[in-house]
Amino acid sequence: MIDRSLEKKTINTLRFLSVDMIQKANSGHPGLPMGTAAIAYTIWTKHLNHNPQHPQWFNRDRFILSGGHGSAMIYSLLYLTGYDVFLTDLMNFRQWGSITPGHPEYGVTPGVEVTTGLLGQGFANGVGMAIAHENLAARYNTENNEIVDHYIYGIVTDGDLMEGVTSEAASLAGHLKLGRLIYFYDDNRISIDGSTDITFTEDRTARFKSYGWHVQEISDGNDIDAIDSAIESAKSDPRPSIIVARTTIGYGLPTRAGTPKAHGEPPGVVEIGAAKEAVGWQADKDFFIPSEVLKLYRNSIKKGQQSEMDWNQKLSEYCVQNEDLGLDFSRVLACELPVDWDKDIPVFEADEKGLATRASSGKVLNAIAPNLKDLVGGSADLAPSNKTWLNGEEVFQADSPSGRNFHFGVREHGMAAIINGMSVYPGIIPYGGTFLVFSDYMRGAIRVSALSDYPAIWVFTHDSIGVGEDGPTHQPVEQLTSLRIIPKLSVIRPGDANEVAEAWKLAIERREQPTTLVFSRQNASTLDRKKYSSAEGLRKGAYVLADLGDDEPELILMASGTELQYIVEAGEALAEKGVNVRLVSFPSWNLFEEQSDSYKDSVLLPNVSRRLSIEAGITTGWEKYVGSEGIMIGQDRYGASAPQPVVYEKFGFTAENVINKSLELLS
Amino acid sequence: MIDRSLEKKTINTLRFLSVDMIQKANSGHPGLPMGTAAIAYTIWTKHLNHNPQHPQWFNRDRFILSGGHGSAMIYSLLYLTGYDVFLTDLMNFRQWGSITPGHPEYGVTPGVEVTTGLLGQGFANGVGMAIAHENLAARYNTENNEIVDHYIYGIVTDGDLMEGVTSEAASLAGHLKLGRLIYFYDDNRISIDGSTDITFTEDRTARFKSYGWHVQEISDGNDIDAIDSAIESAKSDPRPSIIVARTTIGYGLPTRAGTPKAHGEPPGVVEIGAAKEAVGWQADKDFFIPSEVLKLYRNSIKKGQQSEMDWNQKLSEYCVQNEDLGLDFSRVLACELPVDWDKDIPVFEADEKGLATRASSGKVLNAIAPNLKDLVGGSADLAPSNKTWLNGEEVFQADSPSGRNFHFGVREHGMAAIINGMSVYPGIIPYGGTFLVFSDYMRGAIRVSALSDYPAIWVFTHDSIGVGEDGPTHQPVEQLTSLRIIPKLSVIRPGDANEVAEAWKLAIERREQPTTLVFSRQNASTLDRKKYSSAEGLRKGAYVLADLGDDEPELILMASGTELQYIVEAGEALAEKGVNVRLVSFPSWNLFEEQSDSYKDSVLLPNVSRRLSIEAGITTGWEKYVGSEGIMIGQDRYGASAPQPVVYEKFGFTAENVINKSLELLS
Repeated sequence: MIDRSLEKKTINTLRFLSVDMIQKANSGHPGLPMGTAAIAYTIWTKHLNHNPQHPQWFNRDRFILSGGHGSAMIYSLLYLTGYDVFLTDLMNFRQWGSITPGHPEYGVTPGVEVTTGLLGQGFANGVGMAIAHENLAARYNTENNEIVDHYIYGIVTDGDLMEGVTSEAASLAGHLKLGRLIYFYDDNRISIDGSTDITFTEDRTARFKSYGWHVQEISDGNDIDAIDSAIESAKSDPRPSIIVARTTIGYGLPTRAGTPKAHGEPPGVVEIGAAKEAVGWQADKDFFIPSEVLKLYRNSIKKGQQSEMDWNQKLSEYCVQNEDLGLDFSRVLACELPVDWDKDIPVFEADEKGLATRASSGKVLNAIAPNLKDLVGGSADLAPSNKTWLNGEEVFQADSPSGRNFHFGVREHGMAAIINGMSVYPGIIPYGGTFLVFSDYMRGAIRVSALSDYPAIWVFTHDSIGVGEDGPTHQPVEQLTSLRIIPKLSVIRPGDANEVAEAWKLAIERREQPTTLVFSRQNASTLDRKKYSSAEGLRKGAYVLADLGDDEPELILMASGTELQYIVEAGEALAEKGVNVRLVSFPSWNLFEEQSDSYKDSVLLPNVSRRLSIEAGITTGWEKYVGSEGIMIGQDRYGASAPQPVVYEKFGFTAENVINKSLELLS
Repeated sequence: MIDRSLEKKTINTLRFLSVDMIQKANSGHPGLPMGTAAIAYTIWTKHLNHNPQHPQWFNRDRFILSGGHGSAMIYSLLYLTGYDVFLTDLMNFRQWGSITPGHPEYGVTPGVEVTTGLLGQGFANGVGMAIAHENLAARYNTENNEIVDHYIYGIVTDGDLMEGVTSEAASLAGHLKLGRLIYFYDDNRISIDGSTDITFTEDRTARFKSYGWHVQEISDGNDIDAIDSAIESAKSDPRPSIIVARTTIGYGLPTRAGTPKAHGEPPGVVEIGAAKEAVGWQADKDFFIPSEVLKLYRNSIKKGQQSEMDWNQKLSEYCVQNEDLGLDFSRVLACELPVDWDKDIPVFEADEKGLATRASSGKVLNAIAPNLKDLVGGSADLAPSNKTWLNGEEVFQADSPSGRNFHFGVREHGMAAIINGMSVYPGIIPYGGTFLVFSDYMRGAIRVSALSDYPAIWVFTHDSIGVGEDGPTHQPVEQLTSLRIIPKLSVIRPGDANEVAEAWKLAIERREQPTTLVFSRQNASTLDRKKYSSAEGLRKGAYVLADLGDDEPELILMASGTELQYIVEAGEALAEKGVNVRLVSFPSWNLFEEQSDSYKDSVLLPNVSRRLSIEAGITTGWEKYVGSEGIMIGQDRYGASAPQPVVYEKFGFTAENVINKSLELLS
């Protein structure tokens, strides 16, 4: 027999705890917690299979609060169900140094699965998680032992549904029939500017049906039984599910419920007090948690421990029944790379003609893939151009979930946010590719990957005006630097095929951060590494290729990407003229900045002020390395539509120009 | 009686001219022109009301090729119908200096209405154009004289429909019932990676119906009568129309039609020859235009001249019947601002407490709006926070199209691309607002605004870690500079209320470029302009506020935005200690770079190497102004969730820190 009055109290506790946090912080968003508390309660106490004392347990159900502004509710849930989030943390909501920041951040609070609050991101992250689930299930589950078996729950909002990234991800989720997704749509019909009637009158139910989703409607978002049975039927449906729940923003607030004012302001003690009194609570009692309520929530601890123990038992049996798979799955759980994953990465012989770095990237990727099953990815409908295809591997589809090649469609932002969701799963090393110019479309999600330390790999080809005929719309100019300046995002633009190999190695090893790889459409000479130093230097961001001439360097030439070949050619020519010149390959600012000052000084000799950089992108930022007396050859305007050699020549990306500018510097 | 055989020839001419261009350039995308030639022919010869000899005629119908990769077709149409695009231009397709670049660019080719090729942009631009049409129609049309009366046609592709920006714009277009929109969807079921079945299986018809669009289906994209009658019924329907036309990519190419290979590669002379022969053309005759075909297309010239003459007649009558409106409309046609539009902009008195620059922005905007009816705009569901609301003005809705306040919804990218489309209309000065951190979502469209010189105004508030409690997800750090580095994009971050006024003035005057205004949530002291130089200096990007002390400056302090108050306070304190200090307000790098070297040197005295910059954003790029011996106070890591004063203090954004660092510099 269900104790209805206890349930009500339990839900009200969640509401009031959240709103008390917000009032104490004098900042936050009460509307969502008050409006969706019954949904969250039902998910968290009746369905969510999790172990609060071990938030990293592999087979837990995931929960995403895509409307991350409602963070007070998730922190309350984490505290109530027994995670390492304490009442003092709730009281420090939105304060300096707390683990309860304004919006949920991955890595900051135990139990927060992804960073949310930038609308649409959480929705799409869940799609990535559901993909990861299907892929791992196909790889590891056996007929009688499904060790990968869980759901991805989420609460999504009007704002999420209006965002384009959500449309992209939802369309793909429907296509892929990601049945493990169970989202509640908090249909409160209120946004910051007013009623959603002012701008958002599309038929959301019909829209999600058009994507191939299983859509249910609940007329009262406080009806626990309806919520419960909708979840049951979502679980049994093979399609992704969205449950449209009619809710009231700020439910229970006497004057603000159902209005935009409920959304993002502390309601004030009078309003909160009245809300409490209306349901028989004491008006002035803050952070009050009835003991029977806490007891009910804390059942999660015991239940979760039992769930994990049962699963561990299953895992033991699995490992006995399937020795090789078991070993590999244990490796995945330990977040380790397989031994020798990099053993087949080729060494590229010196070759003046060389090849496009996107082409060497394709070769390296395909040399790694057979030894690293975790590596999966694809492109936003540019696989032939991005060279991101894994040869001999299946496509990931609803009927081939073990496929490792992904067709993300022309959905760059969706791809990036989906990859972020995939990247938080052990056993999945995801990459996503498109043209560098389209990184602009993905920037919202790329930034979250850096902020949150998601180990995603971003592959951008067609790196510059070298795109040629497609013209300025498709020629990145500022994108390379616009990515470099995102804090914690490593960006690497390798200069030849062997640097490409090193860059891929690094990207795969760096499991604590995203890495951005930038490749060319135009050719890059493969340098003779007997003559020039090893491409391993790439790991330090910048390194000395060679000092040419007989004496101490009087000139430093530096370049990234395909412009590296021009400083090499120019350097050789200058050395013949008797100039003592240092050649520096500079594929990554970010990696260089991680080095010691002494290393940096050993590369960019402080006493050499004659410096020249060349890169087919904007010059902003190179001042730091070139100094005020140096020369920067760059592209500070949009490009032009013409064949690549013409464009490069006209804009000064040639060895000849490097020579001439160097002579200017020396004179 | 329609001459069917001539029609066929006419359509084939369009196909072969396009494919010959591509083959000659050895670069381009034949799939779309071959597949949609019949649609383009029908629109351009039977419906499009335009005057090829006066492409800027106000009341022309607009045509958008959203799949801009099919540019060969639009250039062919422009040539054939008699624009100032010549056969030599077609032969120079995608070559250096030509007016026929790889993708259509606004301002480069007469008759190209917007820059397309970045998928989704064109689709959303058209929505903006349809909004502009409705707004101008409501402002100027009278019961018996509809001088604003035209349609916006477009051809959109699978890629467009997959992009999130399209979903956002389509949802809003349906809500706003933009009946002037008539789009053909080139439903060829092929994308670069293969059949659309691999990733794009949503029910597109149902999806557009869910947005409130009028959806028609045509089973054969070569059926001229069906195309024609679909356009007729689209015209008579009050909703935006999309006509789903089943087409064959690369139609007519013997081996490539209907395959991904038809999309983006020159087919080769053999394939093209065979295609020509199959329809009775000579295989080896390139750029062949049967004279009767040219004659048919060139009818557009006479028809167009007549149309414009008729309209001019109407306009004369209008001006007689409606003197004031007529005068104002003539002003609009002349692309002039009304006299005295800026007369009510307030001068803000000195005030140490000051106010947030978003607040002064709201005041300035509302002082301009009554005198400048062209000014329309809104926010992506953050109007109360962005202070973008025009007081006393209606909301733009289907039943109130004269409204000047827009509810764009939580659709940042859609908003930006829509505003781009609005901005190319005379009489419309559009602005769009959101938080600075969400500029990441809009970047695709912002870049196009800069590349294309669209005079859009971007309003970004919550400019820094000063966002406070909402935390790192919502605190921009690198965004300010990431916008500054977009070529041709002016970015201004004013330092006090009077600089805000100047910034708005400049944004409105600059009708040849977009302007980005960056405003704060935190307060900025209003400087005493009797003591410090005039805020008009903002127009030069950076200017000397004051030289404090009795002697030549030995130290230059520079800042943008709300950090300006810290250098002022620090400067005063240092001067009291006997330091000769120059204070430089530096609201805009881009504007500063437009100045002469002598002006620049007069502000940043070359002989003063002790320089300090302070700005609550990344330091990259400041090196240029601070020099290698200077100090930059900035925010090179993500922020933190805490009240703004705490965050600013902890990260060193205080006058005290400026003083201490200055003393370091001086010692």
